[in-house]
Amino acid sequence: MNGKTNLTIGEAQACVLRHVPAGGVEEVPFDDLLGRVLAEEVRANRDLPPRDVSAMDGFAVRSADTASAGATLTVVDDLKAGDRPKLTIAAGECARIMTGAPTPPGADAVVRVEDTRALSANRVEIVVSVKAGNDIRARGEAMRNGDVVLAAGAEITPGAIGMLATVKSARALVRRAPGVAILSSGDELDSLDAPFDPERIPEANGHALMAQTRALGIEPVRLGIARDDPQELASYLRRGLDYDVLLVSGGSSVGVYDHVRPTLESLGVTLHFWRVALKPGHPVAFGTFGQHLVFALPGNPVSSMVCFELFAGPAIRAFMGHPRPFRRSVTATLAHTVKHRPGRTELVRVTLRRDADGGLSATSTGLQDSGVLSSMAWADGLLVVPQDSEELAAGTVARVQLLDGFEATSSFIETGA
Amino acid sequence: MNGKTNLTIGEAQACVLRHVPAGGVEEVPFDDLLGRVLAEEVRANRDLPPRDVSAMDGFAVRSADTASAGATLTVVDDLKAGDRPKLTIAAGECARIMTGAPTPPGADAVVRVEDTRALSANRVEIVVSVKAGNDIRARGEAMRNGDVVLAAGAEITPGAIGMLATVKSARALVRRAPGVAILSSGDELDSLDAPFDPERIPEANGHALMAQTRALGIEPVRLGIARDDPQELASYLRRGLDYDVLLVSGGSSVGVYDHVRPTLESLGVTLHFWRVALKPGHPVAFGTFGQHLVFALPGNPVSSMVCFELFAGPAIRAFMGHPRPFRRSVTATLAHTVKHRPGRTELVRVTLRRDADGGLSATSTGLQDSGVLSSMAWADGLLVVPQDSEELAAGTVARVQLLDGFEATSSFIETGA
Repeated sequence: MNGKTNLTIGEAQACVLRHVPAGGVEEVPFDDLLGRVLAEEVRANRDLPPRDVSAMDGFAVRSADTASAGATLTVVDDLKAGDRPKLTIAAGECARIMTGAPTPPGADAVVRVEDTRALSANRVEIVVSVKAGNDIRARGEAMRNGDVVLAAGAEITPGAIGMLATVKSARALVRRAPGVAILSSGDELDSLDAPFDPERIPEANGHALMAQTRALGIEPVRLGIARDDPQELASYLRRGLDYDVLLVSGGSSVGVYDHVRPTLESLGVTLHFWRVALKPGHPVAFGTFGQHLVFALPGNPVSSMVCFELFAGPAIRAFMGHPRPFRRSVTATLAHTVKHRPGRTELVRVTLRRDADGGLSATSTGLQDSGVLSSMAWADGLLVVPQDSEELAAGTVARVQLLDGFEATSSFIETGA
Repeated sequence: MNGKTNLTIGEAQACVLRHVPAGGVEEVPFDDLLGRVLAEEVRANRDLPPRDVSAMDGFAVRSADTASAGATLTVVDDLKAGDRPKLTIAAGECARIMTGAPTPPGADAVVRVEDTRALSANRVEIVVSVKAGNDIRARGEAMRNGDVVLAAGAEITPGAIGMLATVKSARALVRRAPGVAILSSGDELDSLDAPFDPERIPEANGHALMAQTRALGIEPVRLGIARDDPQELASYLRRGLDYDVLLVSGGSSVGVYDHVRPTLESLGVTLHFWRVALKPGHPVAFGTFGQHLVFALPGNPVSSMVCFELFAGPAIRAFMGHPRPFRRSVTATLAHTVKHRPGRTELVRVTLRRDADGGLSATSTGLQDSGVLSSMAWADGLLVVPQDSEELAAGTVARVQLLDGFEATSSFIETGA
């Protein structure tokens, strides 16, 4: 068997990322752009605002008329956003103006309504003195025609969607999303729609991997369950290698019935590593078949999910060109001591709670056996116990890789801000 | 106009959450369950493992036979996951066994393969002495028939999907997802498919709000653009009030053409607050119409997006029953000084970078004018400048509310763990 063994998590992640192909590009319509990555820069097609506009509700004036506070002006026009002013403001005149409305010819400043006093329907006192340009948003201040507003390689966030709408970019060229295939392997597995049999092991991994992939915005293809038969397995794997990313769970250990790795090699897959100094998830393997990526994930449901979070997920996001391929991590204070046998980096499923001081405290979700999926189901994150540590004592500040981006409490409600 | 004004962000969030209705429940098929919240507890329908199984690849033995290290045993069977052992292991005998395979009758311990030495095809030396139960996962250790494995109110994470597959729960009763309608308002707005007109303001808010809603897993309904005409606006708003959550952007200020709030009130909407001591996003208003929630969001694109993140997004997640309705926040060190005029809490769009020491540093994305959408498009989060502060000096540790859950670097690659 080729490939390195017992890499650290970081070495294994770096190895995976080195093998992620540049991928292609595709043009995608507006409604499907969220979460994709731009393959071309996007430039402004106009100035914004298109003219000088008022930044406030108030009165457009000639600043010279307000040289001394207390001037009384005649209101000759009434302007709101979307209007195109026709009247020119002469000395002693002004126009009522709403936020976003173009300033009329002749006027060079805006006085906000709270700095004025209505004398009659068309007479207003300007209580203050203002300078030219006061409370005017200048043409092109927010966006200048021809400027790059989104760079190639930028992720299409909701803000970028707003920006694409602003420049009327109803389609965009983006990095291609990978086709992802998911295969489970093992004679003991029972599919979700098979009749209930308390003696068999229900197939959880494939479904959890489908969900993890969907959580990244990709709809994967489920290949099914391959039995522990080399020929059946080879036929499934051959189909799976048509996809950009193939995830196989189970059968990747070293037992005589663990056919996945030898079968992958016989099909021409180059294994880059197998086994990572990681718990749970030790038996994970990674290979490539041309530009296609293959992850052989452990059969234990928690191990399989952890390896997805660490290796397959970042690879899928990197394939899409995401500048931020990794799940975010935070630091948290351990609520209790975590024992550890030195040798492998351990990822402990934890829930996070916000303390009174605004920090986070981490508590294990319970039994950490790699078969106990429930402890993964309600975890907020994976707490990292370093490879060589004997234990992490209660009160230790440790790193937690998050499983998503939400939390129970608002820091604003706590502080009242 | 009714309702409180100039609430703090925290007061406004608490007010919104108090008005989120309990909502109903619906039965949803397996493939649509990710991201929903369980309305019923889920119980185990079987023991897992269904029998005592081997935790390792090795040999199933009678522990008494290994009382002294170096025993030689006859291999009488070969067991893999999914098998149902028929042979009983007698004294002096053992069975080759794979991880997950049921232990055969007679055997009461497993010796891992690395603690054995093959003597011939069917003779093996057991190098160590093991106790009863060694490396056996007991029946029901991971899940016991009848136990609650997922509580009512639990979020359906990928791990929960795996757990639902484990108990063959192909459908589940979940909290109803809200119908969300999005309306933009303003004469100056130009729709995405209208012919290019450099004088008009392209409609960005509605699209950005659509994307923010989709990022929460909800497909919203786009009502379009209402002109600044009270009757047209009323007719649009009346349609919008059919939905559980109505988001209206623009027209919520106090100008004479800002009809949204008075029109909402005339339609019977109770306003709970308008204006929050927040920048950008000051003119936000919130009301209810029976159990329906209405957010009148500012017309500036950035303000509208910030108010979604602070108020509408958490309300949508709370409606779905999510135990963690809020975006996660982290602390970061300011890379530069941020000036601030006391009075309102300011949210500064920032990018986050991981420092060599593992902490985060925050840098402003540039011009913070609320019309500059590009600075929102590539932000990682919103840095909180407290209401009363004069400035936040470079090096200050401040809170940043994240906009999603990803980052550029892996903490594992940095530390090599």
